[in-house]
Amino acid sequence: MRIVYVDNNATTRIAPEVYQAMVPFLTGDYFNPSSMYEPAQATKKAVDGARREIARHFGNVDPSEILFTSCATESNNTAIQGTAKANPSRRHVITTAVEHPAVLEVCRELKRSGYDVTFLGIDGDGNLDVSEFIRALRPDTLMVTVMHANNETGVVFPIEQLARLTKETDPSIVFHTDATQSVGKIPIDLAGEYRHVDLLSFSGHKLHAPKGVGALFVRKGTPCRAFMVGGHQEDGRRAGTENVPYIVGLAKALSLCMENHQEEEARIRRLRNRLEKALMERIPYIQVNCRNAPRLPNTSNVSCHYIEGESMLFELSREGICASSGSACTTGSLEPSHVLLALKVPFTAVHGSIRFSLGRYNTEADVDRILEVFPEVVASLRVISPYWDEKTNSPVSDVEERLGKHH
Amino acid sequence: MRIVYVDNNATTRIAPEVYQAMVPFLTGDYFNPSSMYEPAQATKKAVDGARREIARHFGNVDPSEILFTSCATESNNTAIQGTAKANPSRRHVITTAVEHPAVLEVCRELKRSGYDVTFLGIDGDGNLDVSEFIRALRPDTLMVTVMHANNETGVVFPIEQLARLTKETDPSIVFHTDATQSVGKIPIDLAGEYRHVDLLSFSGHKLHAPKGVGALFVRKGTPCRAFMVGGHQEDGRRAGTENVPYIVGLAKALSLCMENHQEEEARIRRLRNRLEKALMERIPYIQVNCRNAPRLPNTSNVSCHYIEGESMLFELSREGICASSGSACTTGSLEPSHVLLALKVPFTAVHGSIRFSLGRYNTEADVDRILEVFPEVVASLRVISPYWDEKTNSPVSDVEERLGKHH
Repeated sequence: MRIVYVDNNATTRIAPEVYQAMVPFLTGDYFNPSSMYEPAQATKKAVDGARREIARHFGNVDPSEILFTSCATESNNTAIQGTAKANPSRRHVITTAVEHPAVLEVCRELKRSGYDVTFLGIDGDGNLDVSEFIRALRPDTLMVTVMHANNETGVVFPIEQLARLTKETDPSIVFHTDATQSVGKIPIDLAGEYRHVDLLSFSGHKLHAPKGVGALFVRKGTPCRAFMVGGHQEDGRRAGTENVPYIVGLAKALSLCMENHQEEEARIRRLRNRLEKALMERIPYIQVNCRNAPRLPNTSNVSCHYIEGESMLFELSREGICASSGSACTTGSLEPSHVLLALKVPFTAVHGSIRFSLGRYNTEADVDRILEVFPEVVASLRVISPYWDEKTNSPVSDVEERLGKHH
Repeated sequence: MRIVYVDNNATTRIAPEVYQAMVPFLTGDYFNPSSMYEPAQATKKAVDGARREIARHFGNVDPSEILFTSCATESNNTAIQGTAKANPSRRHVITTAVEHPAVLEVCRELKRSGYDVTFLGIDGDGNLDVSEFIRALRPDTLMVTVMHANNETGVVFPIEQLARLTKETDPSIVFHTDATQSVGKIPIDLAGEYRHVDLLSFSGHKLHAPKGVGALFVRKGTPCRAFMVGGHQEDGRRAGTENVPYIVGLAKALSLCMENHQEEEARIRRLRNRLEKALMERIPYIQVNCRNAPRLPNTSNVSCHYIEGESMLFELSREGICASSGSACTTGSLEPSHVLLALKVPFTAVHGSIRFSLGRYNTEADVDRILEVFPEVVASLRVISPYWDEKTNSPVSDVEERLGKHH
């Protein structure tokens, strides 16, 4: 069966070019970059070269400001816990209610250990309230950690503006952003528009590098202590022997994303828009979440009222369509997504939500296939739904009452 | 130039079989193991299978007791910081003065934050004093963290005995061992002889898997909180999307080590012993460190009096021989190794120390080559050494006085 993979916000296929770039370091050049002998210089050079290449894509920042990690989760743990360790006297952190678990859980852990954490909400379109953000800044605020683009809805927060406002209020507040979903999709000039951002996390496997490598941008002078301690690697800021193949792959993957960036993002946006338009036309009682907010070009989060999301995903999977209900990092939980709850998606729809996240390898044929399958899946699930009246092709008259029982 | 790689305690060549096992997950099966759709089940199964395979090699422990990490450094940070988080009322930790930096630095960090840490010394042979160990155990001891085999000298500590003694004294003291250098070289039955060990760290790249993957054995019921928090992966004990290719590679690598374990370790031991014997015969004023202690079969740490180690390594490197002066994780430091200092290697020799660490791909020809090159290197460096009298082929008469000036 042909697979239509539209879950690129969960993970991505390793690009063949990335794989090819890694092969020499998976087969021949296995030396430890810290070793002094001559053959190890090739691995050291590869790591240094990858660091320079990545720094270039962020507005030519200093390569020493790029720290390699094992994933965005580690980058986020490092950014938040490292900042907390560096300045234990400030005990207030600002974040949002819609962060990825890799930020949310670290903030909750800080909260359990006595920190005061402000979790900013969003409006029904998915946007933050900037004036509420400004009011949240306090004299004892240690740091702000606000994601760049939301993994579930694709909503892009104005972090360049939030970082500037933070620094205008108090330059010593550290500004961190989890940019895992935006890096490779949105150009980020850390020497220009984004110059007030101190720490920025991302990972490889969202941009066609493998799972198991990430990076953290640490602006020079930012008080952030090491999270993983031990050896002297990464200038003493991240211990552990360097994952040379994946570091090389990460740099190659980012370069590939940035090379044809404008054409590629426009192409993906056209696919996504066509998909959304057709779904709205063909499926009654459907809503595209956050469609009025600035969004990533690849992400579409739709809610179908009066049906159950897991069944939709299961039926799609049977047809070879790989999509998800939210973050793969929360799979297995029966709770509705914290992001959709924060959006106040109506309770008739919150369980019938699905995310399509497109990517480099998606084509018009993939969208055709989804349009062929998905409206029928929704229709067939509504036929067996106790909340749907097949005769009138609309919800049963007492649906709110019935559904209310489960809330 | 032919490369003779004898720095296998720093890192190892990825085995071709390991690479082949990883290729499907670096090319086709890229799905997120947490995803629900059918194609992702293959990656989930691969991770589960790797976990079972590894558990089997440790005496058929429960697979859920194996936690995948990004490296031994992360495993050690998790073991120590996770145990400290789980039981904040106990504030004493026992370790040794000769641990790898990935344990030593975490212990030093605990010490800075108010913990009392006992750093046990070793005798001139490299052994711990077991009665001193027992005396160090206290009612407020949180944990013991003692390495299995030393990375610089190869000395093997009797951790099965130390773990047993710890539990006999107080079953609630957590026993952790950094087994990075022993896993794959020494069979470890965590359900048998080593059943009192609660936490055991190791990494892939010391046993012919890639750099960037490790594991932590966490015995059921051990109070150890997550270090890296975020998603629900690894049963909530280690957040971050799983590095599927490397996890598969780690299991394959361990199986390869264990398959021909006895023959292979005997072969490597013969090579090592032949090397040591010949070096002792051909080089005056040389000592094999810790040769009277139980040692890994592959490691030889020798000290040549009256010369400088970095020059030896440089001259060997020019001849294609890759060896090191100690841990790659401390390269760049001009301080003599903390392990050799703890051993009280005489000051006439501590700077002239070199570690040969053999491995699967070493042959008799490699030993021949070292024997051809190394004695000449030592001789030529002594010719230019101010501490050596070429005429008598022995140190100058006032060498102790001269060298003493630098101490």
